[in-house]
Amino acid sequence: MDMPAKPVTRIGTPTSDTKNLKTRGRDSLKDIVGKMSCSEAFYFIVTGKTPNETERNVFDSCLTILMDHGLTPNAVVARLVEDAVPDDIQVPIAAGILMVGGKFVGTMVGAGRLVSECVAKGGDPRSWAAETVARFKAEKRRIPGFGHPYYFPTDPRQVRLFEIAAEAGVPGKHIAAIKILSEEIDKSSGKHLTLNATGACGALLAEIGFPVEAMRAVAVVSRAAGLVAHIYEEKKNPITPAVSGFVNAIPYEDPA
Amino acid sequence: MDMPAKPVTRIGTPTSDTKNLKTRGRDSLKDIVGKMSCSEAFYFIVTGKTPNETERNVFDSCLTILMDHGLTPNAVVARLVEDAVPDDIQVPIAAGILMVGGKFVGTMVGAGRLVSECVAKGGDPRSWAAETVARFKAEKRRIPGFGHPYYFPTDPRQVRLFEIAAEAGVPGKHIAAIKILSEEIDKSSGKHLTLNATGACGALLAEIGFPVEAMRAVAVVSRAAGLVAHIYEEKKNPITPAVSGFVNAIPYEDPA
Amino acid sequence: MDMPAKPVTRIGTPTSDTKNLKTRGRDSLKDIVGKMSCSEAFYFIVTGKTPNETERNVFDSCLTILMDHGLTPNAVVARLVEDAVPDDIQVPIAAGILMVGGKFVGTMVGAGRLVSECVAKGGDPRSWAAETVARFKAEKRRIPGFGHPYYFPTDPRQVRLFEIAAEAGVPGKHIAAIKILSEEIDKSSGKHLTLNATGACGALLAEIGFPVEAMRAVAVVSRAAGLVAHIYEEKKNPITPAVSGFVNAIPYEDPA
Amino acid sequence: MDMPAKPVTRIGTPTSDTKNLKTRGRDSLKDIVGKMSCSEAFYFIVTGKTPNETERNVFDSCLTILMDHGLTPNAVVARLVEDAVPDDIQVPIAAGILMVGGKFVGTMVGAGRLVSECVAKGGDPRSWAAETVARFKAEKRRIPGFGHPYYFPTDPRQVRLFEIAAEAGVPGKHIAAIKILSEEIDKSSGKHLTLNATGACGALLAEIGFPVEAMRAVAVVSRAAGLVAHIYEEKKNPITPAVSGFVNAIPYEDPA
Repeated sequence: MDMPAKPVTRIGTPTSDTKNLKTRGRDSLKDIVGKMSCSEAFYFIVTGKTPNETERNVFDSCLTILMDHGLTPNAVVARLVEDAVPDDIQVPIAAGILMVGGKFVGTMVGAGRLVSECVAKGGDPRSWAAETVARFKAEKRRIPGFGHPYYFPTDPRQVRLFEIAAEAGVPGKHIAAIKILSEEIDKSSGKHLTLNATGACGALLAEIGFPVEAMRAVAVVSRAAGLVAHIYEEKKNPITPAVSGFVNAIPYEDPA
Repeated sequence: MDMPAKPVTRIGTPTSDTKNLKTRGRDSLKDIVGKMSCSEAFYFIVTGKTPNETERNVFDSCLTILMDHGLTPNAVVARLVEDAVPDDIQVPIAAGILMVGGKFVGTMVGAGRLVSECVAKGGDPRSWAAETVARFKAEKRRIPGFGHPYYFPTDPRQVRLFEIAAEAGVPGKHIAAIKILSEEIDKSSGKHLTLNATGACGALLAEIGFPVEAMRAVAVVSRAAGLVAHIYEEKKNPITPAVSGFVNAIPYEDPA
Repeated sequence: MDMPAKPVTRIGTPTSDTKNLKTRGRDSLKDIVGKMSCSEAFYFIVTGKTPNETERNVFDSCLTILMDHGLTPNAVVARLVEDAVPDDIQVPIAAGILMVGGKFVGTMVGAGRLVSECVAKGGDPRSWAAETVARFKAEKRRIPGFGHPYYFPTDPRQVRLFEIAAEAGVPGKHIAAIKILSEEIDKSSGKHLTLNATGACGALLAEIGFPVEAMRAVAVVSRAAGLVAHIYEEKKNPITPAVSGFVNAIPYEDPA
Repeated sequence: MDMPAKPVTRIGTPTSDTKNLKTRGRDSLKDIVGKMSCSEAFYFIVTGKTPNETERNVFDSCLTILMDHGLTPNAVVARLVEDAVPDDIQVPIAAGILMVGGKFVGTMVGAGRLVSECVAKGGDPRSWAAETVARFKAEKRRIPGFGHPYYFPTDPRQVRLFEIAAEAGVPGKHIAAIKILSEEIDKSSGKHLTLNATGACGALLAEIGFPVEAMRAVAVVSRAAGLVAHIYEEKKNPITPAVSGFVNAIPYEDPA
């Protein structure tokens, strides 16, 4: 094996370095703690850029919209794990976020990647959209960010996210691209498909320059915070006994 | 087994309920998304209370101070897992936060619990502190929140956190308690022990009424955000080859 | 920080060493693969000792008895995670085994530790048992390995495990100790408490010299195997839709 | 949402059913515990079939060959997590197995799937092999199960696995298919590529009818057992201080 490149990190100084307390070139205690909110610091530590007001508002809207959707399967998992491991709250949080995978949140990343490619490439977004629709059709794949089991014809969360982005004053190219994509999808199939909240998040995160490779992590961190509420509620007012009762009533059958 | 109590949740409505989009009694789209920052929403969803400015500033300071400390073991773990599972960012995040356990962050919870008990009980904090020091001494246990391998006589992060809390205008009883505890520790042993940043966080979170049972989760969520920066850096500028090279050079020996 | 001791491993050679393929001093390809069963290799790699027939039979009985108990909470968690992350079977397995914690399986370790201490110390096991019962009573703690919500007066799995151990020809001191402990528990409280399967496993693993610190791992590995059956069944014949339907019907309520 | 099919499980009875202790139609205490080894029970609980001697020997060889490869990244991760969470052995095991993902062990599943398709389809394996090589070449993808950074021209573990399979008396069609595939790969590129141990495992597991969807789990369970040895060694003879020392020396740099 070749000699690896000399490793280096540009994130932060170690605790052992008591003379410097730095994060990405800034003084951690003067410029971050007491100055930045958690989401500003999160955006800063990933991108290396202090978010401006537009970026901050958009980033917070994506973080807050993904925080909770009631008793989703990952909330149920976190609660069942909490019941078994009640003294190590990081364990139920970890189990719950393991489910924030490609099947559900992957569509956010997919949508974010598509519109980023559109904007990076430049040119007419309408012809890009038509080509994209044709390509996914040929490959028999669903376009990420579209369709919803409950919301039709519009997902109110998508509407709200675009409203916030407009008020915040984003440049708007990525949002324009996903809207055009939505129109081309409908035109191609002859029927309407809902542009959903994860698709909208992908476009918003692309607007504020959050890297596509880390987009899913926005959902992970946000959901981690939401799961804490479920885990804490489970300690006071558990659903585990009811869920256990339900699954215990699922019958066992001998194989045929 | 007895019939469990009829289960109920007071966190949020499910996605299937398209008429209501509520979180803890508030309209998710009008009152939270676009209105609250991520940390405000996190505080709100756990405690059910909208944080005032004092609470918000203190909560953000605890979240940001715990976000990163360079190439800590959990950053290294997240990076090694990222190298093996590069397409599912929730997996390295989960592996990394599994390490936010009792050994390190437990001291924050322990300190938070101690000062909460002191304030809840009322009375003279000095006699509480003396009794606490005596009790831990008798049980040969270390008092959580004190001691540091690098910072002596003071941990600058603790100083900064108390400064922020004072500026934010916290009531101050929990902070007073931990300061008195610090004095009694020194008096009892005849030598100074550093009041550290995790001890300070425990006192600050107690000041703003964040529940002791969920305090460790503040570190978990915050560190999850910080790990994203490491995982993303690992994709661009990895340390895994160097770490692998180092451990491959650790010799294998036959048992004696 | 002091210079750490020069690190070394005595488990196995790395893949990069193509001249040696060794595990704990033995040739991996000649002495292990094709020669040992999985459980023999597991025992060997942890203890460094090739198990004799007695040890093998007892170890296999502990591994097989812990493999499955139907739709336990950890099977449900593994199945829900499988539904969300269907292409990475290690993820649902990991989520499920995270629940093999102190609350349930800890009793096995606790029982194993107690009887190991009794045998290590020597002397009259009856006075050890009486002292142990008195100590736990004074500390208001439950003695690990006793009590069961369904089995009374005996747990048939415990009976079977002791039968296998007797047939296998274990020395028997740890089993004798836990039986005497059971008698002293009943004598002290004046009523019978079931000696359960996890208590029995603790005693059996102590009989065959499996280290107390790794005992819980026997349950973890065994349950990992059992979870594979649940995850695979979930792919073919899922319970997730029914569980989701059940939890979706748990009502959301506004806070009072 | 439609009413889901009435859920049922055919794995095992719950603990609450004290009258039946059954696993896949067999009496758990009479037919499994004390009768089957861990690997026999693992094979049985996943496939519903008691393994014959051939299947048992082959399954054990796959389990044992994957158990350890020294200080691999997942062993290092398990050891670092053990250091942070020393009292919950399931946590470092879970963190370590999260890394048994598509990048490394996926090739076993890929190879197993390819040869299963070949045998299921019937016909001349040579033309199947030539078509497969051509298809992967056209799609610029690597054929799973081939190539190795250290072993050339042969991987001794593959040789040993095929030897065991032959001695065990497997039908041999899947092994024949992968050997022919190996020949066609070499013919197509004009140079030799090593048939590796994971490719061999895929073929062996296909020979004994272990389902492709669960093949990766064989590596997961086996590695879980191997990690226990590393975690236990870490408690006695840690590498964490040395690894921490190494990563602490990786310099932090301000961004340019």
